[in-house]
Amino acid sequence: MSNAPRIAISRRLRKSPFTSRAMAQGAKAFTVYNHMLLATEFESLEYDYWHLCESVQVWDVGVERQVSIKGPDAGKLVQWMTPRSIEGVADDRCVYLPLADENGKLINDPVGIKIAEDHWWLSVADSDVILWAKGLARGAGLNVIVDEPDVWPLAIQGPDAETLMARVFGDAVKDIRFFRYKRLAYKGHSFIVARSGWSKQGGFEVYVDNVEKGQALYDELFEKGDDLNVRPGCPNLIERLESGLLSYGNDMDSRHSVLESGLGAFISLDKDVDSLSHDALRAEAAKGLSRRLVGLVLPKSDAPMPLAEQPFGTELVEAIPQQNDLGHCLGSQCWSPRYKVQIATAVLEEPLASEASCEVLLADGRTVTAAITSVPFDFEQLGLKAQV
Amino acid sequence: MSNAPRIAISRRLRKSPFTSRAMAQGAKAFTVYNHMLLATEFESLEYDYWHLCESVQVWDVGVERQVSIKGPDAGKLVQWMTPRSIEGVADDRCVYLPLADENGKLINDPVGIKIAEDHWWLSVADSDVILWAKGLARGAGLNVIVDEPDVWPLAIQGPDAETLMARVFGDAVKDIRFFRYKRLAYKGHSFIVARSGWSKQGGFEVYVDNVEKGQALYDELFEKGDDLNVRPGCPNLIERLESGLLSYGNDMDSRHSVLESGLGAFISLDKDVDSLSHDALRAEAAKGLSRRLVGLVLPKSDAPMPLAEQPFGTELVEAIPQQNDLGHCLGSQCWSPRYKVQIATAVLEEPLASEASCEVLLADGRTVTAAITSVPFDFEQLGLKAQV
Repeated sequence: MSNAPRIAISRRLRKSPFTSRAMAQGAKAFTVYNHMLLATEFESLEYDYWHLCESVQVWDVGVERQVSIKGPDAGKLVQWMTPRSIEGVADDRCVYLPLADENGKLINDPVGIKIAEDHWWLSVADSDVILWAKGLARGAGLNVIVDEPDVWPLAIQGPDAETLMARVFGDAVKDIRFFRYKRLAYKGHSFIVARSGWSKQGGFEVYVDNVEKGQALYDELFEKGDDLNVRPGCPNLIERLESGLLSYGNDMDSRHSVLESGLGAFISLDKDVDSLSHDALRAEAAKGLSRRLVGLVLPKSDAPMPLAEQPFGTELVEAIPQQNDLGHCLGSQCWSPRYKVQIATAVLEEPLASEASCEVLLADGRTVTAAITSVPFDFEQLGLKAQV
Repeated sequence: MSNAPRIAISRRLRKSPFTSRAMAQGAKAFTVYNHMLLATEFESLEYDYWHLCESVQVWDVGVERQVSIKGPDAGKLVQWMTPRSIEGVADDRCVYLPLADENGKLINDPVGIKIAEDHWWLSVADSDVILWAKGLARGAGLNVIVDEPDVWPLAIQGPDAETLMARVFGDAVKDIRFFRYKRLAYKGHSFIVARSGWSKQGGFEVYVDNVEKGQALYDELFEKGDDLNVRPGCPNLIERLESGLLSYGNDMDSRHSVLESGLGAFISLDKDVDSLSHDALRAEAAKGLSRRLVGLVLPKSDAPMPLAEQPFGTELVEAIPQQNDLGHCLGSQCWSPRYKVQIATAVLEEPLASEASCEVLLADGRTVTAAITSVPFDFEQLGLKAQV
């Protein structure tokens, strides 16, 4: 991949207060997410993966932009946007909120952070939720202020995350429950610190709203984590896919409904909430799904299947011949070094989605049979054991 | 720049029907624009620039996504979104439409294509205008359908563009006036062909809504342009900045008003149009601007000033010391091989914006004096002559 194209830098691709650090620390590849640069790889995808699962990493996830919705109608607007009931959500909660339009199609899937009774932050995936919120608010004359505060989250992820965070913020971090947050002081500034993050290895997210103190925090995390083998990192494709964490735009997008995306467990169709998508999603649930997101697991092998050529952007699985080419089908894919299989997501039409397997066409022209499973992947059911 | 980071490819970064061709033709760098891949360089920025100014290029600008607004309230919604009057716009017109929110801040600056009396396409710059339009429409209960059709524009740009296009579409292309379009047949399919494009070298844009015929068209443009020295290309930083074509996100963004961005000539504050931003912009015009977009021209030199190091993303001009660091200040910058100067855009606060010059801090620590000029750049007023 030595001739792989560069990423062209311009001011339109915004940087966080930590971008220059991630560059100096050797980030080898970047993507763009919410109009910002996001590192995707340091040593290698697989090296970063094992390290994340065994130690602790500091991630610049400033790309998780906050859409702030504040005012007397804040709760009303947030509820319009999501089919998940936000009634009674406590003031220290983080809550996963699929957002959907009037057809039940996904607009984004942020974590909502309840700042106060009349104030929410939506920590968004890759789409301009701020424009949707502004449009709805203005169109309906709601009494809210919608804006994007200067907040750049840092994630501290991995089994040693708590140990490292306690060295910097004190033992108070140990009392933060999963998907809850506390305001903790660092150099006299109060940061929102949540037990959350886009891995299943455990950890925290610090919502950095002060550049100078945030940069000092970043540096101190590395100083105090030296004996823990702390490294810079980023959301890791292998880890998040193995763990079944979905990526908006990769695994599902605005062409898919919340239910097709397998997010039914996170919404409240049994409650009468005033959400734009409620009627459409209830009707879809009553009728039954015509397609849904599944996991694909290719036959076990000793190593990633070699491709004769690896041109820019080529992935192992190229198509699913039994599927019509209607909308999005193939999602993310990667080699799982833990289970020694290639895994992928796909949105398959019924009845194929309910079958045990399907044919997949590989980039080198071969066709192989992939097992169809749930997401998160049920490796055990397929007789696969982790090889650590 | 051999260690420059790669662009990390994933399904979230959408491809057009032409992306694989641009890759095979040697695109060396990509950016991401509207969640899609966009090539930024083939041979080199400067080589591509001179070729664009002298011959003809074919650009994959599939990133110019179309936001389709259709229905009885289509005109009403489009007028809400832009402070430019769309009253009486002819059905074959393309019209530059700054979009602004209720504070007069820029949301995007698309070219609007009037498809029919009740149907507009907005060919958008890099932000999810579709979400704003959907939000406004739903919030206010407008009778429109807002969606993103499968359309991937191809641009044919350069002095020989008309010659090449006539070989493929016939002499009818010669009758297309600037910022007008015709529906022209190619292999039995009717394409919208406009005389437009993001360069000042002249040319056309074909709104490709048929993959197979679009790809045949792409290939035929190269076959029939061989003796014209046709090459693959892309919007060129040097050409567009020298020509004064602004880039949303680079030169101005959602923190700047339409007037601060220097787009006053494209809006209709003298007319009573039902636009969300009209009151705010009229008030701003009455009060006078506190900052505005200007051009900066550095002292003449023989070649681009060398930087001791060129780390990822480093640009020559680093800061403008006389400015407060409030919001966006520096915009785009490049070396102008035609005028032998480094040029840049900046949004300067008054009274500095009205001065003749300002100090700029370079990446190597030196401070030099830059002339302040209008955008488009008034090279002549500064005594600079083109050196072709």
